[in-house]
Amino acid sequence: MASQKVPQATAERLPLYYRTLQRLVAIGKTRISSSEFGSIVQIDSTTIRKDFSYFGALGRKGYGYDTQRLMEFLKKILYQDELSKVILIGAGHLGTALLNHNFQKNNNTKIVRAYDVDPSKVGKEISGTEVHPMNELVTDDNSDITAAILTVPSAHAQEAAEMAIASGIHGFLNFSPTRLVLPADVYVRHVDMTVELQALIYFLNHSMEERKSE
Amino acid sequence: MASQKVPQATAERLPLYYRTLQRLVAIGKTRISSSEFGSIVQIDSTTIRKDFSYFGALGRKGYGYDTQRLMEFLKKILYQDELSKVILIGAGHLGTALLNHNFQKNNNTKIVRAYDVDPSKVGKEISGTEVHPMNELVTDDNSDITAAILTVPSAHAQEAAEMAIASGIHGFLNFSPTRLVLPADVYVRHVDMTVELQALIYFLNHSMEERKSE
Repeated sequence: MASQKVPQATAERLPLYYRTLQRLVAIGKTRISSSEFGSIVQIDSTTIRKDFSYFGALGRKGYGYDTQRLMEFLKKILYQDELSKVILIGAGHLGTALLNHNFQKNNNTKIVRAYDVDPSKVGKEISGTEVHPMNELVTDDNSDITAAILTVPSAHAQEAAEMAIASGIHGFLNFSPTRLVLPADVYVRHVDMTVELQALIYFLNHSMEERKSE
Repeated sequence: MASQKVPQATAERLPLYYRTLQRLVAIGKTRISSSEFGSIVQIDSTTIRKDFSYFGALGRKGYGYDTQRLMEFLKKILYQDELSKVILIGAGHLGTALLNHNFQKNNNTKIVRAYDVDPSKVGKEISGTEVHPMNELVTDDNSDITAAILTVPSAHAQEAAEMAIASGIHGFLNFSPTRLVLPADVYVRHVDMTVELQALIYFLNHSMEERKSE
């Protein structure tokens, strides 16, 4: 697949395109233009055409995109045709919210185990997922696990990540604001609430200024 | 300020740059090269130089960036020199995690009120923030509120957003997977856990394939 040339920004938009296409197919929409698709996902149609162009001729001029075909293509590209198992480290409020969220509903990602230090949580299930004691993380065989979701307090993020790496994990979705110092072959994706909120405030203030100066 | 030409992708990286610079200044680092800065934030130095170039000559060739000056500049650009008040709608697990997170610690954003339908939560405080009954959302004067964080279950997201707009809100950080249908002058920023996780899995799988084919 010619996917090595795909820019990171494009790759990051693919899951959103995929989910939107799933919905369009579900309501019986068989084809869509890039501009209509763009207005649904709230992304410029030029960007959308550019994004899809990295994967060859997915659409036809004057016809648009075949929603079913495009959805199947993205499903494959995003490895959604196979089950990805992940573990969750830290079953506090955020971890519990993610367990309740139930990734399986719309895709093939499943949280198979959670880990926590709290004895009152260990051995129990949260939304059907069992909570294991944190010290088992180092001894558990996680070789079939694609990634770990890290939702421990900041002060414990580095230590928890190192324990997970020792057990075979090489990818993290990190919700703590801490930048982790990890081996170069470990991939970390940050979700930072403060950054998201600051970005929102930036866009709000700038769009207000633009309106005022019109 | 020449910020209207700033691409969205650049604007989205500014909060991360700002926070990293705060840390560098705190540890007494007075200047930094774009390549060193890039290795810290894990972003290509070419991208960093391009991002900063939108705001004029912030660095000097052969010298790099003055961390203090750059931090102060970004503080202003990101409106972090003034307090932004936000409200939180939905004090479930995710909402509680965000209230515990305490945005104020590293920046000037404060959750001033939370709203929930659960009578067992209403009237109480979570991490110092009072929980109001949801029906007060429509009658409360939210004209001094910059944005609302939406952490209600998907089925209630549209309704809650409409109530917030009626009370004066025009910006949302939406954590529900629902795409909201709102007036054009309302700005919505989505944080989608499924999309983040799929993007992580995409990058992990592709980097593994690249390693295998080496």
